[in-house]
Amino acid sequence: MAKPKLVPKKKSKALLLFADTRVSADQLYFGKFSVPDAFLSFKRGGKSYAVLSRLEFARALKESAFDHVLSLEEWIEKAKRLFKKSKCGYKEVVQTLVKEHRISGFTVPSDFPAKLALNLIDEGLDIEVKQGPLFPRRETKSEAELAMIKEGNRCSARGIKAAESMLKASKIRNGYLVYDGKRLTSERLREAIEIECLKSGSVSSDTIAAGGTQACDPHCVGSGPLRANELIIVDVFPRVSATGYFGDMTRTFLKGRPSESQKALVAAVRHAQKTAIGLVKTGVNGKAIHEAVNGEFDKRGYETRFDERGAVGFFHGTGHGLGLEIHEAPRVSAVSAKLKRNAVVTIEPGLYYPDIGGCRIEDVVAIRDEGAEKLSSYHYRWALS
Amino acid sequence: MAKPKLVPKKKSKALLLFADTRVSADQLYFGKFSVPDAFLSFKRGGKSYAVLSRLEFARALKESAFDHVLSLEEWIEKAKRLFKKSKCGYKEVVQTLVKEHRISGFTVPSDFPAKLALNLIDEGLDIEVKQGPLFPRRETKSEAELAMIKEGNRCSARGIKAAESMLKASKIRNGYLVYDGKRLTSERLREAIEIECLKSGSVSSDTIAAGGTQACDPHCVGSGPLRANELIIVDVFPRVSATGYFGDMTRTFLKGRPSESQKALVAAVRHAQKTAIGLVKTGVNGKAIHEAVNGEFDKRGYETRFDERGAVGFFHGTGHGLGLEIHEAPRVSAVSAKLKRNAVVTIEPGLYYPDIGGCRIEDVVAIRDEGAEKLSSYHYRWALS
Repeated sequence: MAKPKLVPKKKSKALLLFADTRVSADQLYFGKFSVPDAFLSFKRGGKSYAVLSRLEFARALKESAFDHVLSLEEWIEKAKRLFKKSKCGYKEVVQTLVKEHRISGFTVPSDFPAKLALNLIDEGLDIEVKQGPLFPRRETKSEAELAMIKEGNRCSARGIKAAESMLKASKIRNGYLVYDGKRLTSERLREAIEIECLKSGSVSSDTIAAGGTQACDPHCVGSGPLRANELIIVDVFPRVSATGYFGDMTRTFLKGRPSESQKALVAAVRHAQKTAIGLVKTGVNGKAIHEAVNGEFDKRGYETRFDERGAVGFFHGTGHGLGLEIHEAPRVSAVSAKLKRNAVVTIEPGLYYPDIGGCRIEDVVAIRDEGAEKLSSYHYRWALS
Repeated sequence: MAKPKLVPKKKSKALLLFADTRVSADQLYFGKFSVPDAFLSFKRGGKSYAVLSRLEFARALKESAFDHVLSLEEWIEKAKRLFKKSKCGYKEVVQTLVKEHRISGFTVPSDFPAKLALNLIDEGLDIEVKQGPLFPRRETKSEAELAMIKEGNRCSARGIKAAESMLKASKIRNGYLVYDGKRLTSERLREAIEIECLKSGSVSSDTIAAGGTQACDPHCVGSGPLRANELIIVDVFPRVSATGYFGDMTRTFLKGRPSESQKALVAAVRHAQKTAIGLVKTGVNGKAIHEAVNGEFDKRGYETRFDERGAVGFFHGTGHGLGLEIHEAPRVSAVSAKLKRNAVVTIEPGLYYPDIGGCRIEDVVAIRDEGAEKLSSYHYRWALS
């Protein structure tokens, strides 16, 4: 029998967070519990703690995953006694926790608020910013999390279906789309999508329903009347209310008759997406996938240019991680990033030329050893007569 | 004529932000422009600058209020040349900006990310955290902003009306509410509210529609069937999509026949709210208003207690500031805070006792010299037969 090596146990710091769960997905991941105001939480000796006010205390005891819920009011009183001060804030509460829990120092996330960090450093506390993600496990999803993201994409698909149905049912009058007797606008299309998302248990904001030149600005949500024979990008990224996980899908439609250049553009994007999805598997570098997409576009002569008015061509990443945040690790882009087993990314190449239109096609995949596993599902028919 | 005093001009630092506009209302206020990923912005010599990637560049030129939009890609190239490095990030971009714009140091908001702050400090940059709000003017609203908040509350009111209509149209069967042949649940009520908010141009998330003991947890959103003869709290805080400003209103309903203790509870809350609104005017301390609410409840014998299972009575603030954030300055609470002219606050006293139920009534007011100006409007009838 081999002699067991004696590895000296490193004195590890406690993790410290101070954020609300709308802003910080880490805070939500940590306690599995939504709180709309910033609160302290920490991890020490394998146990998780939250420091919550009266307003959240009972709910946290019942619903959160924290091992211990401490009363903010009680700890403010402790701090007042310790520092013999009539007024104490979060800084003094942290100092009191350090004393009572014999904490040697803290590791904080990169987005920890600077004010509290600098105040604690000023008081002589050892504060270290975590390099990389606070919870590396957030990047590689459990099967339960994959199911939640799939559910998010079911909501996306229902939203996209609502949009497609509305476009299908529209008539063309003087070059404009008319639905239910009135001009169809980006706003009406977006409302229909977002209502469908609500009905499926999710909240979709900033939903993109943009046509024509508007669609050539990938983050323009779209406004005003929609026209026949123009490419219309529909990008739906709802958050499932029960879990906090996102879906994210995009389809591009056209009502009327597509031109040859529109057909070629859509075919190029769809082909690039297939190529990218075909390359996805555990251990592959996201950068290689992004370069393959660039290669596909180059081969077909779709040039990317950037000038003082903006960009044309393909000028965003091929994809991004998806989970409790709409944009999280890993990126599939020009930056090197190895894809880990069970990470989840979008694959969403796009091409944007004001004289042809914008097209983006987006699906969500889980990284598996044997390749991509699609977590989103919707057909790719786009030209609606 | 009095001799003009010569006040030496202080060398002022540049403001620096690094945040996305979903997380940071300051960033949204600064550029009047939504960006879903963190970006650098700064203010120097009275001019505002944003550093944006290709993906946002063209849209920012068209839509944002920034005086100058710089290209992130270009500034990364400048940084690479300056530092003779093949890879540069935000830290090096800031250092390059400092050099080219001859900036003496930066003032950053309290929630500026710790990692970037500490990295810049390590590089010898003078980084100071702003004490108090980054943009003090955010607290005192312009007439245009007041109109936007009023619009938010019109959306809230439409949501509350949808809920009231559903409760009114419900039947009572075996103590449960039945709507459209099926049991009425918190989920169905919430869906109806949120659809109505969408239709009025806003997105409402985490909408509260909670009855019975659930309503005694002020941040419990509610789930499962709603019962007759129990108090149901409906709290609707939508964000207007076009502007980013919030509404925030609460009404408490009861379907069936209220008990004497429920009647007394609702009367006490409504009376406390009237008292609080009556005290609001420029210069009054929020703490005095909160104490008056406490006094009203004490007088009627409503005790506030806190034990290991949670709290009963009145255990949250009387109100909070409202604007681009759902909770912002000033608070109307146990903490001293003078109310400034044209600040906007909610006034939302509540009482919570599991054996009686929970009641909260919330309106939004602007602080004026002559008193409160209501920015929300909905009736107070609550017992629905």
